[in-house]
Amino acid sequence: MRETRRAMGEILEHLRIASKKLTKRQVDGFIRTLLAAQRVFVVGAGRSGMVMKAFAMRLMHLDMDVYVVGETITPALRTGDVLVALSGSGETDLIVEAARIAKKVGAKIVAITSYPKSSLARFADSLVILPGRTKVARTTRFMKRELAGEYASLAPLGTLFEVTALVFLDGVIASLMVKLGRKEEELKARHATIE
Amino acid sequence: MRETRRAMGEILEHLRIASKKLTKRQVDGFIRTLLAAQRVFVVGAGRSGMVMKAFAMRLMHLDMDVYVVGETITPALRTGDVLVALSGSGETDLIVEAARIAKKVGAKIVAITSYPKSSLARFADSLVILPGRTKVARTTRFMKRELAGEYASLAPLGTLFEVTALVFLDGVIASLMVKLGRKEEELKARHATIE
Amino acid sequence: MRETRRAMGEILEHLRIASKKLTKRQVDGFIRTLLAAQRVFVVGAGRSGMVMKAFAMRLMHLDMDVYVVGETITPALRTGDVLVALSGSGETDLIVEAARIAKKVGAKIVAITSYPKSSLARFADSLVILPGRTKVARTTRFMKRELAGEYASLAPLGTLFEVTALVFLDGVIASLMVKLGRKEEELKARHATIE
Amino acid sequence: MRETRRAMGEILEHLRIASKKLTKRQVDGFIRTLLAAQRVFVVGAGRSGMVMKAFAMRLMHLDMDVYVVGETITPALRTGDVLVALSGSGETDLIVEAARIAKKVGAKIVAITSYPKSSLARFADSLVILPGRTKVARTTRFMKRELAGEYASLAPLGTLFEVTALVFLDGVIASLMVKLGRKEEELKARHATIE
Repeated sequence: MRETRRAMGEILEHLRIASKKLTKRQVDGFIRTLLAAQRVFVVGAGRSGMVMKAFAMRLMHLDMDVYVVGETITPALRTGDVLVALSGSGETDLIVEAARIAKKVGAKIVAITSYPKSSLARFADSLVILPGRTKVARTTRFMKRELAGEYASLAPLGTLFEVTALVFLDGVIASLMVKLGRKEEELKARHATIE
Repeated sequence: MRETRRAMGEILEHLRIASKKLTKRQVDGFIRTLLAAQRVFVVGAGRSGMVMKAFAMRLMHLDMDVYVVGETITPALRTGDVLVALSGSGETDLIVEAARIAKKVGAKIVAITSYPKSSLARFADSLVILPGRTKVARTTRFMKRELAGEYASLAPLGTLFEVTALVFLDGVIASLMVKLGRKEEELKARHATIE
Repeated sequence: MRETRRAMGEILEHLRIASKKLTKRQVDGFIRTLLAAQRVFVVGAGRSGMVMKAFAMRLMHLDMDVYVVGETITPALRTGDVLVALSGSGETDLIVEAARIAKKVGAKIVAITSYPKSSLARFADSLVILPGRTKVARTTRFMKRELAGEYASLAPLGTLFEVTALVFLDGVIASLMVKLGRKEEELKARHATIE
Repeated sequence: MRETRRAMGEILEHLRIASKKLTKRQVDGFIRTLLAAQRVFVVGAGRSGMVMKAFAMRLMHLDMDVYVVGETITPALRTGDVLVALSGSGETDLIVEAARIAKKVGAKIVAITSYPKSSLARFADSLVILPGRTKVARTTRFMKRELAGEYASLAPLGTLFEVTALVFLDGVIASLMVKLGRKEEELKARHATIE
């Protein structure tokens, strides 16, 4: 229980800082790009892939035309489409390759990553920088009270980036609901009835 | 190698018989139902689920509006939709439950199964009976030359039904291509560029 | 941007409260059950399913024997196994059915839900109650400053429950790392090299 | 119906020829490699990915230690593992990249493809050549009676290769059942109880 709560505290503190660090230019740019897209494609690897699927499901609930790269009925990308790519390091092979292909066919690319100079970021038409552990955790209030080394391991690998991305993207859903004038009941009506 | 080829022979013989047993009424009814659907949803469990995904991918290549139950962006079923459900026994819990829900919302149901009196078949607006091992294998030419018991085990569990369903559904794709006037190049153009 | 940040604020406030409401008995019971399991199976529908996959991936990184219900290589449950089932309402058909089957074969069940009297909770050997919106959001500090109706829609459907579950389960991973003496490098070494 | 049956006929004819063209050296080499593996990983894109999942599920039923690249609990590859990669062209980016990574960590590679000189084939420790349409269909008995152009389109894109791979791999399951002395009841006992 003790470590469970400490890890949750570390994640919460990270989320608080990440939320403050968001820039209006990046967030509004992302939202504008989504609203202008004919179709939205999302891609992520591992746990980042799961975060992107959670986002895609809500875009579907909002009645947007959305596809998950790698799922069965995902068609070929084309001009007018937007690819939203999530990678903490911005160097995940599969994701960088997806961005490269999207570029070639004339689709727009949104990169969500911790690294503004990463391979993925370089492909981006629209960029959202979200902090991962290495960029922020070392300076949190929590961390100062603890041995940084021990604490860091309580949210291992990409955990902080992934949770931050999920919460940020759920925030973007809120903005889209308001901009599109969608009520929760409308989302509910589109929610899969067979799961 | 010996058993590999014998099992392939058993499967081939089963496919040959299954192809002959198809009735024009069932196949044309299925194709008409697909062409009349606003949207097509497919569902299957285990290996039957994989067969349905392979079918759904080709329907997407044909530019039909198709969804796989359980994938991320699959919306709620509604009147005007068609659910294509695949289950050898026709008794797989998840699949029967999906058909029950589809019925309730006013969607049409196509059942593909070996058992015309199964729970799934009873929900069907359109029915396609495909033989599984228990219905056919015991009477194949191959089987007569071998100990039925040993041979049966070379295509274990639902293997014969699943392969038959894949080949049948690829046959249905051919009919849809002709009826919709789609050329292979058009299918290729919709084929996912990022996999 | 404004709604994005407000929604993130609502989620954060919910997470803070949810973390405080955790009881030592429930959390330690869950962790003990995981450590005593021969194999762990996880199940969830929709976005809850994605949260469970994110958890399962970390259990694999910890070298635990874990399976996701519905994925290709998931075997039959048996005595000695633990099924961890996630459902906000505790009434999702598929999940309640999974728990019923698990009970029948003698596996242990951990239910993570907002409703201690739900169908899912009734099957549970170990229970973790996590607040969803209806249970907590109406009383948050944030909510008092806003029109509850408008605000509620900024984290639609199961959003608060799902994010809370992800952060809680990442907290549980921290406890397991300490109890099993696993270092982050060991987790990294098991992280998929092909994604 | 007419095109459905003609397409099924084309597929059957292709399967018959493909079965004859199998060489004992390739098939036995593949089976030996599987039996010697500590763990088996499978990978394929699109419909080939579904064929590999169908194969992986049966390997699990046989109690082999098997993983599907891209699924949740798939760990890092290491020396002693075998990667079975399926690609008709042998040039699918994702699959060639997977083979490259597998090579680097010292895993063995089985390539199943139509092209012995493809990028994928060059990585292979064990190779199985299965004919796809371009290699065989033009010379089938069926084809001679029809306009090749029209007929070819009845099994579009990778259809012939994919179905051939599924039937071949189900044949390999038969060989593994005999070599491992597994009975169908044992497979059934491992079949997922929650789907």
